[in-house]
Amino acid sequence: MNNFSYYNPTRYVFGTGEYRTIGTLLQGSTDKVLLHYGGASAKRTGLYDAVVESLRAAGIDFCELGGVKPNPSLELVRRGIELCREQGIRYVLAVGGGSVIDSAKAIAMGVVHEGDVWKLFTQEEKLTAAPLPVATILTLPAAGSENSPNTVITNEATGRKLGYGHELLRPALSIVSPELFLTLPAEQMAYGACDMLCHIFERYFTNTQGTELTDALSEATMRTIMQQASILRRDPQNVEAWAQLAFSGTIAHNNILGLGRVQSWTCHALEHELSAVYDVPHGGGLAVVVPAYFDAVWQANPGIFAQWAVSVMGVAPSRDTERVVKEGIARLRAWYRELGLPQTMAELGIPEDADFAAMAQGACSVRPGGLLPGVRTLNQAEAEQIYRNCI
Amino acid sequence: MNNFSYYNPTRYVFGTGEYRTIGTLLQGSTDKVLLHYGGASAKRTGLYDAVVESLRAAGIDFCELGGVKPNPSLELVRRGIELCREQGIRYVLAVGGGSVIDSAKAIAMGVVHEGDVWKLFTQEEKLTAAPLPVATILTLPAAGSENSPNTVITNEATGRKLGYGHELLRPALSIVSPELFLTLPAEQMAYGACDMLCHIFERYFTNTQGTELTDALSEATMRTIMQQASILRRDPQNVEAWAQLAFSGTIAHNNILGLGRVQSWTCHALEHELSAVYDVPHGGGLAVVVPAYFDAVWQANPGIFAQWAVSVMGVAPSRDTERVVKEGIARLRAWYRELGLPQTMAELGIPEDADFAAMAQGACSVRPGGLLPGVRTLNQAEAEQIYRNCI
Repeated sequence: MNNFSYYNPTRYVFGTGEYRTIGTLLQGSTDKVLLHYGGASAKRTGLYDAVVESLRAAGIDFCELGGVKPNPSLELVRRGIELCREQGIRYVLAVGGGSVIDSAKAIAMGVVHEGDVWKLFTQEEKLTAAPLPVATILTLPAAGSENSPNTVITNEATGRKLGYGHELLRPALSIVSPELFLTLPAEQMAYGACDMLCHIFERYFTNTQGTELTDALSEATMRTIMQQASILRRDPQNVEAWAQLAFSGTIAHNNILGLGRVQSWTCHALEHELSAVYDVPHGGGLAVVVPAYFDAVWQANPGIFAQWAVSVMGVAPSRDTERVVKEGIARLRAWYRELGLPQTMAELGIPEDADFAAMAQGACSVRPGGLLPGVRTLNQAEAEQIYRNCI
Repeated sequence: MNNFSYYNPTRYVFGTGEYRTIGTLLQGSTDKVLLHYGGASAKRTGLYDAVVESLRAAGIDFCELGGVKPNPSLELVRRGIELCREQGIRYVLAVGGGSVIDSAKAIAMGVVHEGDVWKLFTQEEKLTAAPLPVATILTLPAAGSENSPNTVITNEATGRKLGYGHELLRPALSIVSPELFLTLPAEQMAYGACDMLCHIFERYFTNTQGTELTDALSEATMRTIMQQASILRRDPQNVEAWAQLAFSGTIAHNNILGLGRVQSWTCHALEHELSAVYDVPHGGGLAVVVPAYFDAVWQANPGIFAQWAVSVMGVAPSRDTERVVKEGIARLRAWYRELGLPQTMAELGIPEDADFAAMAQGACSVRPGGLLPGVRTLNQAEAEQIYRNCI
């Protein structure tokens, strides 16, 4: 295990009805927030009204900015930054899923950053001031942004989707109320579970030795995600299963499971290119690239893939490691299918003649040395081949 | 799962050599600390010198208070409070195990509390001011105090050992360097592992339903503790095993594993009476009372005990729940024996004619309604019987 430092000061409030306490929880921290959200669903479900009522009852003023879309856009982030500056707002409240929270985080750091916020994502500039605090009320468990120090934003003008991480980007407060997820469409649950699982894959499949505890915790969380998502596929109104899945989604990405391990994030890099260019759902893109990525790299570390196949995918242990690993990957594909997730580029709506070379170049370009890290390092040609294996 | 709120703002720094960075890590937070420690071992191992050197290099002044003993005493806490007040010290640095850290926490809250610090423990008074920040360098992984919001202090004048918890008692900073544990005597490792495991037992054995994720995470951590302690029993110089055990000890007690669950803490209540009166090692006392407690209560919730027996103790699943549970408890006793832990009151040095009635009364007295909570509530007579079953 490698040395590490962990700092996670988010106040994490979990349970039925807790979102109604947002006003009380913010009291003493701020008297005005930017209320940031997506579109019609928060208003249709009554969540918007409940939040506004709670803020008003607590005497907290707000200024609102809706309209966040999946793969949240730099343009709206810029509008949020302007709005906060104009109105003297020093606290952002995100009501939504990962896209809304990521957008809120980008606004929160953009407000205090003197330069161009996008240049933080391209690593041309560094954040030197503390971002505004962000509170979140989660409406879609998937991205883990409610307790992570990361944000991912799409620059529509350039077609780039880039992530940024900073320890001060963990939300100050996050509320997770599982009953809010009962109105989600089935495919959102599947995309979310797929994303959560991949957040663990990116950490779990490593060449770092001496990782017994985080291996075991990761395996426990992966099994729980798969079990609870399968329950929800059959019974979408099971609020207890939503609670388990949502809590697992937070644990999957708050980096407890990644402590002391060299991490990969190559599947995310590969997927971000797909969704930046074709605007496909992140979870759908991951379901396509992950198995192809596993096929391409498992031989570099058969031990960790076999351990996963046995302890997470339920494959019987055997000396024939290749059979064990391949059966594990086959079971993962079957589980994606059970959840109704896409399996190929065609099912994602990405044409055979897409510019996979350019996407591979994009994925590699932001990594040190232009190589994608993991149990085996991948160059641009190998990344392109993974895309092509998904056609 | 029950609703919960979690807030854990400790900066947790883990790895070989990290303790040498204490000065740098404290820079900007304080320019003078109370350096609180135990006895000769920190000086003998060179840790004391390394800490002092790091503080000096960072320009951080200190005033020292050594002499903390196992089952840390109220008297020394009072001396620490006086010292901080006299010297205007606003930061406590604990270099030691759970006893030193608990003593530091009690000092940190005693300094800001206008009343008598002991009355916080007896619940006669409430803490209304924020305690001083506490930093820790851990020298004995066991109590989990490096990332917990709790402290346990013994009032030698009255023979009471009482715990106190407050969310602001989590350390601001904790450093865990596994090589510091290589000089520990074998029995300290065993006591520590036993304590860690029991921190999970107190949370795991619950009647709360819908706890799949924390069940699985708890089982993963329990298995890791048992595996790594068994490795260290054979190979005490295995620094990787110490790293896994120490990290597990933090996870066992920072309450991630207890979120959304009704918790028990009855084994700790029973043990605290033993160590308050007979000054036995906490981990040793737990090894004696835990199996007797399990024997007494498992029938109130055979499901959770059978789940534990199968998934942690490796018992083959069977419809015969009683056999599964009893085999699980037998294997726990065997593991305690493998680690050289005491099994009976006699082995703890507690005589047959000890005043078990008074100890049962003491354990029950601080609980609501005078009853010990858990999968089955225990009254004073039942608590006394558990003690007697350990003779």
